[in-house]
Amino acid sequence: MAKWDVEHNHLTIGGLIFPNLDQMDFTGPFEVLSLIPGSQFHILWKDLAPVRDRRGLVLLPGTTLRDAPALDVLLVPGGQGQEALMDDEEILEFLRTQARQARYVFSVCTGALLCGAAGLLRGVRSTTHWNSFHLLPYFGAIPVDERVVVDGRHVSAAGVSSGIDGALRLVELLGGARMAQAIQLHLQYAPEPPCKGGTPATSSPDILEDARAAGRGLADQRLVTAKRIAEKLGITVPAR
Amino acid sequence: MAKWDVEHNHLTIGGLIFPNLDQMDFTGPFEVLSLIPGSQFHILWKDLAPVRDRRGLVLLPGTTLRDAPALDVLLVPGGQGQEALMDDEEILEFLRTQARQARYVFSVCTGALLCGAAGLLRGVRSTTHWNSFHLLPYFGAIPVDERVVVDGRHVSAAGVSSGIDGALRLVELLGGARMAQAIQLHLQYAPEPPCKGGTPATSSPDILEDARAAGRGLADQRLVTAKRIAEKLGITVPAR
Repeated sequence: MAKWDVEHNHLTIGGLIFPNLDQMDFTGPFEVLSLIPGSQFHILWKDLAPVRDRRGLVLLPGTTLRDAPALDVLLVPGGQGQEALMDDEEILEFLRTQARQARYVFSVCTGALLCGAAGLLRGVRSTTHWNSFHLLPYFGAIPVDERVVVDGRHVSAAGVSSGIDGALRLVELLGGARMAQAIQLHLQYAPEPPCKGGTPATSSPDILEDARAAGRGLADQRLVTAKRIAEKLGITVPAR
Repeated sequence: MAKWDVEHNHLTIGGLIFPNLDQMDFTGPFEVLSLIPGSQFHILWKDLAPVRDRRGLVLLPGTTLRDAPALDVLLVPGGQGQEALMDDEEILEFLRTQARQARYVFSVCTGALLCGAAGLLRGVRSTTHWNSFHLLPYFGAIPVDERVVVDGRHVSAAGVSSGIDGALRLVELLGGARMAQAIQLHLQYAPEPPCKGGTPATSSPDILEDARAAGRGLADQRLVTAKRIAEKLGITVPAR
C-alpha cells in the first residue's frame, strides 16, 4: 500500500453514526480529521434520516452505507446505542468490507465492541471505554489500558473524549507530526481539565462506585452480548 | 438569585447554533452540560432547518429563538460563521434578552465576539480563540489570556476544544466539584495530546505563521467589524 501523500492524494474518511451514539465519540474525531488537507469526510448511516444521540443532539447523515465509497479511514464511535447493533449484519458486514481495504480502522469508546462483533479485533491490541474494558477479550482483542492504542492499521481510543487524542494520533500517522500540530493549534488543544479525575484510577472511589452503579444495567447487558458473540466467533475466554 | 440545587431545581440550558459554526465549540460543551442531572438542553437557531458547520457536519436545531424558554445557561459557540451574525439584530437582541436573566452566559471561541457585539462584555474579563484575542478590547472586554475565564456570571473559553474545560468549570460552579468529576469520569476526560502544541506559545514558529497566514482573510475582516462595532458601542480602544 503506497504511503498516503497529502500533497498528491485525496483521503476518503467515513464515520458511522447511529441512534443513541455518544455524539462526542464522533464529533471529536470529526473535528480533527475533517481538517486534514485534501480529505473528504462521509457521515454514514443506513439511510439519510436524522440520527439522535443519547442526549438529544440530532445529526444528519450525508451518505448511506450502500453509497459509501471505499474508505481510507473508517471511524467507528460508540455510546449506548452500539449495543443494539451488535448482531446487525448490515452494519457488521459494512465494517468488515470497509476494513478489508481501509488504511486505518479507528474505534472510539465502545465502537471497539462493534469492531469486535464484526470479528475485526482478533489478536489486535485494543482499548475501549473504562467501563467496557473487561469485555475486550470476548472479541479476541488484547486489552491495553492506554488512552490511545495503535496496532498496525487499528487505532482505538478509550472513552468518549479520548477520540480527540486518537484522531490527532491518526493524523500524525497519516500526515506527520507537523500536520497534527497545525490542527492542534487551530483547535487550541492544550487541555486543562479543571478537576482531577477522568479515569477510574484518578477518580474518588465513591464517584467511581456511583458511575458503575448507574451503568450497571447496560454493562450487564453488554457482558451477555459479548459472551454470546465470543461463542459465535469461536473465542474462548479463560475464567477470571 | 437562589443557589441552583440539582436535587430540587430544573436547569434550562440553551445553546445557539448557526451556519458555519465550528461544531466542536458547541458539541464539546453539549456533551458535558447535557449530563447535568435534572437539566434540559435546547438547541437553538432562528428556524428548525438543518445547520451545517464549517466542515460539513449537519446539526438539527430543536427550538427556535422565538420559542426558547428563559435560559439558566446560555451557550454561545463561535467559528467562522460568527462573523455573519455580528450585525444581526435578531441574534444580538436574543443574546441580550437571555443574558439579562441567565445565571451564566458561556462563550466558546469566537462566540465571545458575538457576545461582545451584543454589548455583553463591557468591563468583563474574557478570553476567546488565540487568533481573535486582540479583538476583545473593541467590545470593551478585559482580555485575560487563560484557557477558561470566569467573571461573575460570564464564563468564556478560548479556542474550540477549550469549551470542554469551560463546560466542566461551569458544572463545578453550578453543581459542585463532585458533579464535574462524575461527568469527567463518564467522558474519560484525562487528555493526552500526542504532540506538544495547541497554543501560539507552544507551537513552532513556522506552524504558527502558517496558521496566521491561512486565517488572515477572516482575521482582517473581523478586525474591521470589531472597529465598526466599537464605534457603535461608543468604545474607544487606545492605539497599540
